[in-house]
Amino acid sequence: MSLLTVGSVAFDALETPFGKTDKIIGGAATYITLSASYFVRPNNLVAVVGDDFPQSMIDILQGHGVDTEGLQIRQGEKTFFWSGKYHNDMNTRDTVEVQLNVMGDFDPVIPESYQNCEYLMLGNTSPAIQKMVVDRLTKRPKLIVLDTMNLWIDIANDDLKALLPLVDVLVLNDEEARQLTGDYALVRAAATIRKMGPKTVIIKKGEHGALLFQDDRIFFAPALPLEEVFDPTGAGDTFAGGFIGYLAKTDDTSFDNMKRAVIYGSAMASFCVEKFGAERIIDLTPEEIQDRVGQFVKLSAFSVDM
Amino acid sequence: MSLLTVGSVAFDALETPFGKTDKIIGGAATYITLSASYFVRPNNLVAVVGDDFPQSMIDILQGHGVDTEGLQIRQGEKTFFWSGKYHNDMNTRDTVEVQLNVMGDFDPVIPESYQNCEYLMLGNTSPAIQKMVVDRLTKRPKLIVLDTMNLWIDIANDDLKALLPLVDVLVLNDEEARQLTGDYALVRAAATIRKMGPKTVIIKKGEHGALLFQDDRIFFAPALPLEEVFDPTGAGDTFAGGFIGYLAKTDDTSFDNMKRAVIYGSAMASFCVEKFGAERIIDLTPEEIQDRVGQFVKLSAFSVDM
Repeated sequence: MSLLTVGSVAFDALETPFGKTDKIIGGAATYITLSASYFVRPNNLVAVVGDDFPQSMIDILQGHGVDTEGLQIRQGEKTFFWSGKYHNDMNTRDTVEVQLNVMGDFDPVIPESYQNCEYLMLGNTSPAIQKMVVDRLTKRPKLIVLDTMNLWIDIANDDLKALLPLVDVLVLNDEEARQLTGDYALVRAAATIRKMGPKTVIIKKGEHGALLFQDDRIFFAPALPLEEVFDPTGAGDTFAGGFIGYLAKTDDTSFDNMKRAVIYGSAMASFCVEKFGAERIIDLTPEEIQDRVGQFVKLSAFSVDM
Repeated sequence: MSLLTVGSVAFDALETPFGKTDKIIGGAATYITLSASYFVRPNNLVAVVGDDFPQSMIDILQGHGVDTEGLQIRQGEKTFFWSGKYHNDMNTRDTVEVQLNVMGDFDPVIPESYQNCEYLMLGNTSPAIQKMVVDRLTKRPKLIVLDTMNLWIDIANDDLKALLPLVDVLVLNDEEARQLTGDYALVRAAATIRKMGPKTVIIKKGEHGALLFQDDRIFFAPALPLEEVFDPTGAGDTFAGGFIGYLAKTDDTSFDNMKRAVIYGSAMASFCVEKFGAERIIDLTPEEIQDRVGQFVKLSAFSVDM
């Protein structure tokens, strides 16, 4: 099945307790399409960069089977830039600097060859842009997954609320779920969000795993306990890419298959945090991924006589 | 198999965002023996109270099959008292007042009929008292489980370190694991603790579940996502009581059975937080417990083709 992803392709500068980087490649859509590339073709990207974006990185995306026809390269303009600094617990971070650059007036043009995609991943960008993408598709995809962040809940709440009824799955973290609903208890927050539109809600809890809610069913996927979290940047996007990539590959949106997709997403995210930026998810093998999924099975399997 | 539990039997006064209590019955050994009572007999208790402790509560313990021969009632003295106030997130609390009373010079006398117990639960009290119990047993139990808390890591670190080589399983929460080892990453903290003595380490993460470490194996048990956490007091002790109670009932200390025991402990803890104090774990039925364990199975079960 075909996947279409929209979101940012960016430069990041990161500082963690383990070190800091110069400008490296980041952005939600970068992580999502790379992660999904281990599962699905066609893997179509709609995004925008400036002419400062290196061809070598576009080559890497293409090398992973990402279709970059929808990647606009704006001459004389600069790529979106974000820099952040992680606290010692690695769970919280401060934004040091944001330069919107080409993202300031991003117009998500969808190439004709991307129409009729079955799976749509609305990676983190403004809800207005995300909605434009939905509106511009001539046929509604089989499954629309939406990611968002605290910034949009804060400054574009109405746009976000208008978008929610159009999507099937909302992926967000625990703090964002609490912010969106005003409810501390995640079970109640998920129920409230489902009334806003999406039938399925995934709440990511970082090192504490992820919860999948649909109807009266809840599935909990652990995070892999790691000795070292080197850099959490992109882990949420990598999760989303693995999740929708696995669904698109198997073309099965049942709850049981979504559970598997959450495990595959969690496995992909567990790789992402091992190195700076997208470094680790660029050079994975299918065997490594399958082995990591096996670790999740071992981690959470038990049997009881019922 | 027989279980022996040592620990506090106390009065608590609690304040949560949902309300506050007058003096109610609490204490580590109260929660442990009540929780274990759904699994094991004999269920022997070594503890001390003052003459202000109500006979009605002793009747409740006995009604659950708890053997109270080892419960000292000191005339003219008062029962240990603790009062605490929970913050809005229910994960953190402040101690408002502590009156040691009879716990100040507690001498854990072990009745002859308690000797030869196969399972020993060292509930939270000072490491010196816990060690006295181990020393006074004429035969080493098959399995010794130790619980402790930040206070003892802080003020009785040497006593605790002397006790650790004598026990098989240490149960503690994430913050205590970090405090004991100075390591933020729980995988490394667990490895460090295992070098201190206990072959098995359980790190409780409250609403985020629990991790079981043994050799190079890790098992993760989720916590049940709850709409309402009414009062977390005693949840950790209730977990420990369910864990060792299940092990004593099945008399199987293999890793696979410890995984099941962690699930049973987590199920018991999920009941505990539903009402104030020990109220909820006093009136459970075996069917309710089995049904709750079934919810844990549903919550974490998935299948992947490997």
